[in-house]
Amino acid sequence: MERRKFLTGAAIAGAATSLAAPSVAQGKVEMAIVSTWPRDFPGLGLPAQRLAARIQELSDGEIEVTYFAAGEKVGAFDSFDEVASGNSQAYIGAEYYWKGKHPGFAPFTAIPFGLTASEMDAWTKYAGGQELWDELSAEFGVKAFAAGNTGVQMGGWFNKEINSADDLKGLKMRIPGLGGDVMSKLGVSPVSLPGGQIYENLVSGAIDATEWVGPYNDYFMKFYEAAKYYYFPGMHEPGAQLALGMNAAWWGSLSKTHQAIIEAAANEENARTMAETNANNGAFLNKLINDHGVQLREFNDDVYDSFGEAASEVIEEARDHSELSARIFDSHLKARSEIGAWTALSDTAYVNKRNNVLNR
Amino acid sequence: MERRKFLTGAAIAGAATSLAAPSVAQGKVEMAIVSTWPRDFPGLGLPAQRLAARIQELSDGEIEVTYFAAGEKVGAFDSFDEVASGNSQAYIGAEYYWKGKHPGFAPFTAIPFGLTASEMDAWTKYAGGQELWDELSAEFGVKAFAAGNTGVQMGGWFNKEINSADDLKGLKMRIPGLGGDVMSKLGVSPVSLPGGQIYENLVSGAIDATEWVGPYNDYFMKFYEAAKYYYFPGMHEPGAQLALGMNAAWWGSLSKTHQAIIEAAANEENARTMAETNANNGAFLNKLINDHGVQLREFNDDVYDSFGEAASEVIEEARDHSELSARIFDSHLKARSEIGAWTALSDTAYVNKRNNVLNR
Repeated sequence: MERRKFLTGAAIAGAATSLAAPSVAQGKVEMAIVSTWPRDFPGLGLPAQRLAARIQELSDGEIEVTYFAAGEKVGAFDSFDEVASGNSQAYIGAEYYWKGKHPGFAPFTAIPFGLTASEMDAWTKYAGGQELWDELSAEFGVKAFAAGNTGVQMGGWFNKEINSADDLKGLKMRIPGLGGDVMSKLGVSPVSLPGGQIYENLVSGAIDATEWVGPYNDYFMKFYEAAKYYYFPGMHEPGAQLALGMNAAWWGSLSKTHQAIIEAAANEENARTMAETNANNGAFLNKLINDHGVQLREFNDDVYDSFGEAASEVIEEARDHSELSARIFDSHLKARSEIGAWTALSDTAYVNKRNNVLNR
Repeated sequence: MERRKFLTGAAIAGAATSLAAPSVAQGKVEMAIVSTWPRDFPGLGLPAQRLAARIQELSDGEIEVTYFAAGEKVGAFDSFDEVASGNSQAYIGAEYYWKGKHPGFAPFTAIPFGLTASEMDAWTKYAGGQELWDELSAEFGVKAFAAGNTGVQMGGWFNKEINSADDLKGLKMRIPGLGGDVMSKLGVSPVSLPGGQIYENLVSGAIDATEWVGPYNDYFMKFYEAAKYYYFPGMHEPGAQLALGMNAAWWGSLSKTHQAIIEAAANEENARTMAETNANNGAFLNKLINDHGVQLREFNDDVYDSFGEAASEVIEEARDHSELSARIFDSHLKARSEIGAWTALSDTAYVNKRNNVLNR
């Protein structure tokens, strides 16, 4: 079955590459999705599979979706090239995995000290984010939509307490994207590993520390077997947005209705992933603490100040890559200032006051 | 044209009521939506119209939607009965408008000191909220989905400073739902008015104060002409969720694909309304302050403590209405405790730390 799917996918890919024609067979549109997430993985893989199924459902089967988890057709980090080249029609992943191609991709997932999930959604949809994303993606023949968010990530798993920036020096830590660059400035050796390879590296001691997502996602990774100190809040991914990226020529060949269905399914899953994560994180954090002896720790202000200084430098460097990169980072930071000012008056002010009253 | 639409709607309604049969004409499904919002009203009316259009678009025109703003077919507050009776297929509004029918409706919009928008979405979709909502709605022959959220609302417009709970005594204030009941315990006379009638009552002096939504929505209401003090954060609606309610028999008659399309469109609009509001509130708050002399004020802790005590009593009373009401309120409050604990460690902790670093 997998082999048959593979061959079908390859046949479609050939058509899309050479002709930029719609993948139509007997009135159907075929859509092979390659993913950066392991199959059936809670919090990321399952939402990606749910999105794939939803596109097929909303189209009443007119869009025939075949979903390949990481490694089933191509490796996780080969997903972008697979789609840009037209070999598959779409990928599900996180845009900052492609920052080596262009640093402007990072702000469409998350940047250190950047936007929260709700700010990210506001920026992307109503403050210029999507337009810049389209401009960047078009340079690679891709069209992408937001299709998930994991919210503020935990700061990571460490095998000792982090009481000052000095405690970070010399650590080998799995932390991709610009967060890894921030850590690098503080003396950490950052490593980028796909989800399926982190546990073995942590247990073997090849890395000393790792971040992944949050309690719900991390629980299933069993990092607590090798690192007991679990820090919050992460500065590196305050609202990590996931993406559905499509071959632009294929996207352009779709009917308006099929385009609307794919966009709606992505928008729906964007909110669902966040809601599911928020609903589960508290309970799974309790399980980690109570069943597995995990030690919850909050980064102190000194450590956060060090993060902040390093983040400013990293953002400045990424911004200076190109004119387009500068516009993307500037737009993200403008949203942090303007939309963030509203966050401070609304959700943050309210939760601070609510919890004051409730905890009295 | 309006008359023709009206007659079409009435004819369909008859069929739905008496036969519980699908409203099908020549392969099409007709869907008359009545709304509690004025036509073309930014932040509420426009999102409702966008949702109506999106359902038609995603179905490739198979679901033919006719949208009636408040007063175009029935008055805003008659929308629920219009749909429960089968006269129209769906309403767009806020469930707490129906708290007179059952106080259990309030927690599906917002309750004082309750859930924020992201917590509301987590509760509704992944922590038992939708199941309880379905149980309550079924008692009235309705099926509802979340279809918008306005986030933490501003505390309201006042014509004097509110420095203690004593300053509230004797005010006539437009504030519906349980928020109005909280205000009543503090000596306010709460009034429930639909959006289209608030301005005239405030300008004439029939009411002294009003809340509505937030800067973006409120800007267009011109309340600043009659009340200059604009307070944050509101305790009464920390994440006011909007709803698409449908006649349950009509909903049950739809194909699985049409049901999925309507659910997806509602989920999509739920996030879009929130994103649009968050993207606009900061800029419109600045316009209110700079162009119209509005005085921004934060409720002090003493006032918030008074709100908190009154809110506890109001929630207890609403909870005691019935066994179902108790289960709904208890579920909402359990989510506040469990999901809220995660909010405190994630978005709130992060934004507090981010702003500390940025404001240094």
